[in-house]
Amino acid sequence: MESEFDIIKHYFTRPATNALLGVGDDAALIAYNTTTDLAISTDTLVVDQHFFADTDPCQLGHKVLAVNLSDMAAMGAIPRWLTLAITLPKDEPQGRSTWLQAFAHGFFALADRYQVELIGGNTTSGPLNICVQIIGEVAKNKALKRSNAQPNDDIWISGQLGNAALALAHLKQQLILSHGALEVCLPALHTPTARVELGQCLIDLAHSAIDVSDGLLADLGHILSSSNLAAVIQLETIPHSWVWNHYASHPQALEWLLSGGDDYELCFTAPETRRNEIQALSRELAIPLTRIGKMLQGKGLSIVNSAGTVIEHTKKGYDHFLS
Amino acid sequence: MESEFDIIKHYFTRPATNALLGVGDDAALIAYNTTTDLAISTDTLVVDQHFFADTDPCQLGHKVLAVNLSDMAAMGAIPRWLTLAITLPKDEPQGRSTWLQAFAHGFFALADRYQVELIGGNTTSGPLNICVQIIGEVAKNKALKRSNAQPNDDIWISGQLGNAALALAHLKQQLILSHGALEVCLPALHTPTARVELGQCLIDLAHSAIDVSDGLLADLGHILSSSNLAAVIQLETIPHSWVWNHYASHPQALEWLLSGGDDYELCFTAPETRRNEIQALSRELAIPLTRIGKMLQGKGLSIVNSAGTVIEHTKKGYDHFLS
Repeated sequence: MESEFDIIKHYFTRPATNALLGVGDDAALIAYNTTTDLAISTDTLVVDQHFFADTDPCQLGHKVLAVNLSDMAAMGAIPRWLTLAITLPKDEPQGRSTWLQAFAHGFFALADRYQVELIGGNTTSGPLNICVQIIGEVAKNKALKRSNAQPNDDIWISGQLGNAALALAHLKQQLILSHGALEVCLPALHTPTARVELGQCLIDLAHSAIDVSDGLLADLGHILSSSNLAAVIQLETIPHSWVWNHYASHPQALEWLLSGGDDYELCFTAPETRRNEIQALSRELAIPLTRIGKMLQGKGLSIVNSAGTVIEHTKKGYDHFLS
Repeated sequence: MESEFDIIKHYFTRPATNALLGVGDDAALIAYNTTTDLAISTDTLVVDQHFFADTDPCQLGHKVLAVNLSDMAAMGAIPRWLTLAITLPKDEPQGRSTWLQAFAHGFFALADRYQVELIGGNTTSGPLNICVQIIGEVAKNKALKRSNAQPNDDIWISGQLGNAALALAHLKQQLILSHGALEVCLPALHTPTARVELGQCLIDLAHSAIDVSDGLLADLGHILSSSNLAAVIQLETIPHSWVWNHYASHPQALEWLLSGGDDYELCFTAPETRRNEIQALSRELAIPLTRIGKMLQGKGLSIVNSAGTVIEHTKKGYDHFLS
């Protein structure tokens, strides 16, 4: 069966002509002026697919912008302009008004933080569907493409993985998180932090980057296939919270860590020679940056544990047409 | 009750800061280089709102692009780049594959005609929802804004109005069109022609423009409110097909002509001094261009017939939250 990536590849990918970079990265690139390129990306959240119908609209306003800011982060771009196409159910106007007010509050609070400007949009009725398109600026020829990883690059992850997946498992009643655990995991799912400043700082340090939206294996897998390289990851080095530790023996623990979507951390590759600078950047931005593996010549992604055993992984990540 | 325009105005409109023009026109404008601005717009088609679920996917691929090209036309911009965010039902893969192939065929056939490039997108599952975002180039400070109409401007319409509304009435079984009538009306609904070349040629002739997507009264009404002017229209001068003539005594005939959406003709205003040039342009492009009225000082849109009687019009145009 075709995955969402197959669909994009089969039906909607053609070679870039006027653009510097077309379909198939976190953002497309077009030339802007002599010093700057424009990075352009779009991301949609759909009710019952990406969020529950009763999700707090203020958090939803934050999240739909955060997932788009995250694409800018993954290119090293400065987010500048937004359009918002929103499809809303035709329910009773009082409820819609309250919902919209809260949604706009969450959306603009985050937009203001990054001084990114809503310049256009579209409102129509139908099942709730929120599509944001974002345009950013990035130094000419410096954008962090998926295709530029080099053999022997270190593989780095920002923050922690798995928290959003744990929160989702809780909401789906697959486990019951404590109050303290929810305080760690729910914000990862509902109000993720796009690593915008980090992405911009990585422009001169990293070779390639992607944001972890569909799970580490799927997203790192995109860097591998775009760069035509292999990678090996040390399982125990993957950064996670105490909550994940608490559930480390749960049958789904590895899936949450390796294939859980919605983390919006950056996965990037950089030469060994930049380790000190990257660690200094981590301290400066107060964002944990963790080395989890190496890029290698060849094909395929291997995960090994500290005993040297290769971990089997069949489920690569979230896919809207395979799940 | 709030209309879709109220929603945009109340919740999502803030003054432009870095953009040259923000929310509230056919496209936003940002500075690109010393000679050019970028025009940016987004438009969504939703199943059961904008099209029936069994609409020919090839025609749908054409239409979703045409409605976005039409926004570029209304600004006088040259369309350049596209993103496509498509939400697709998770039905059986064979059907999806055939559907996508046909959709992509219709989409790219039109994209190729205007050499506009698909540079990014997003595919997810859910009720069918297709969102295109388009970026075009327009000569610096020359874009055809809604707000720039002048008193005594002539009001012009390209092509014919009402054909798409007649086709929709037929599909809803409100009337039964003959084979010959369907040949006139169905293409207006399913494969509209965006007036892209016309829009570009109007840049030095017209003061303001909008595309007629929601009906003449609603869309010309946007020019009136943005330009803070009034207008009077001569009913009999509104261009229409022989099909509309055939149904001229139908109780809904005026509604189809004045408030029918989906025509994607351009409504523009220009000084009287440019009449000859506009008529020459009409011959050159082989597009009928018809004068239907005048812009005036004051407020309100009046429609008068040849007997001098003012026509009552209560239904202004299609609105997704009022219909």
